[in-house]
Amino acid sequence: MLKLFYSPGSCALASRIALEEAGATYEAVKLDFAANQQRGAEYLKINPKGRVPALATDRGILTETPAILAYIAQTHPKAGLAPLDDPFAFAAMQAFNAYLCATVHVAHAHKWRGYRWADDAAAQEAMKRKVPQNITECYTLIEREMLKGPWVMGDTYTVADPYLFTVARWLKADDTDIARFPKVRDLVRRMPERLAVQRALSGEA
Amino acid sequence: MLKLFYSPGSCALASRIALEEAGATYEAVKLDFAANQQRGAEYLKINPKGRVPALATDRGILTETPAILAYIAQTHPKAGLAPLDDPFAFAAMQAFNAYLCATVHVAHAHKWRGYRWADDAAAQEAMKRKVPQNITECYTLIEREMLKGPWVMGDTYTVADPYLFTVARWLKADDTDIARFPKVRDLVRRMPERLAVQRALSGEA
Repeated sequence: MLKLFYSPGSCALASRIALEEAGATYEAVKLDFAANQQRGAEYLKINPKGRVPALATDRGILTETPAILAYIAQTHPKAGLAPLDDPFAFAAMQAFNAYLCATVHVAHAHKWRGYRWADDAAAQEAMKRKVPQNITECYTLIEREMLKGPWVMGDTYTVADPYLFTVARWLKADDTDIARFPKVRDLVRRMPERLAVQRALSGEA
Repeated sequence: MLKLFYSPGSCALASRIALEEAGATYEAVKLDFAANQQRGAEYLKINPKGRVPALATDRGILTETPAILAYIAQTHPKAGLAPLDDPFAFAAMQAFNAYLCATVHVAHAHKWRGYRWADDAAAQEAMKRKVPQNITECYTLIEREMLKGPWVMGDTYTVADPYLFTVARWLKADDTDIARFPKVRDLVRRMPERLAVQRALSGEA
């Protein structure tokens, strides 16, 4: 059985929603970040990166949200969670996910985990100050250029949608008003109408 | 015909090597970063992110190295550049590429493009100081946990190899000695034996 290692409020929610959408049987294993459990010896044996998500499969561990999302879509083709037979459309979806992973999530992390990139407190404060500007730039690009609507890839729901939903829920904490991005806001509002999203959210609570 | 937008020395080299490995017909379009051409109006119409690589296809533009690499592999299946029929192995390869994109490249960028994340000079200097430590942590993880050897995924060469080759060439500039990571060094040394790599490198020169 699949096992998803997560912490509440983290980007692991995207993978959990995808598992629910896929109708997958899985166990969710909660890590206590307050207790730094993700850096504990036991978890580091599972995921030496000390991060979430990690998805344990019968073949081994998978990490990194874009890779896990594509895996769930490919292994549950009937759920129709990605354009599996169209390499261009698949790549476009993957490009969206890569942007969330490598640019949007990273921009967000500079508010909360600036210690990753600089040791002194003043530098970490300087990073924090720039977060709303960077996040605004990211979502301006998403709103204008990337989110086709109503779903990220257009008419068809894909694993890019739970990923955007997950990171867009951080907007408020990053002092950025989601109302500036109507298509993003609309998607974030519609997502909880889906049973899979309700299940994933209540599972985290 | 495919068109790859690149700048010399950038991560676009990974996509170029993959195109050469695939035997793809493509045109390489060089952007002059010194002249900030990647932020010019003409290129922003192609890639609103203002970054490289971008791959123009007959269906539209693709961005983000992991997405482009998977696309090249999927559209040139005979080249055998990814485990296309094994979702777990494909996901493991994608997880490796996502790590290079979202963690290793980002760690590197804090030396050269700290202005992305903080405005003041002292903060940017503080970020620079931490780069060798972060890069060392990344490659320690790659060396011990991720690079199976002789290639990233084991016996079979995949698009993860040109990507690692590309970013590992930045180690020296990041004041990190590649000799500390023998498997990585070995891969970087072997890559230029491949005709595709020679072609990609001489094309950039």
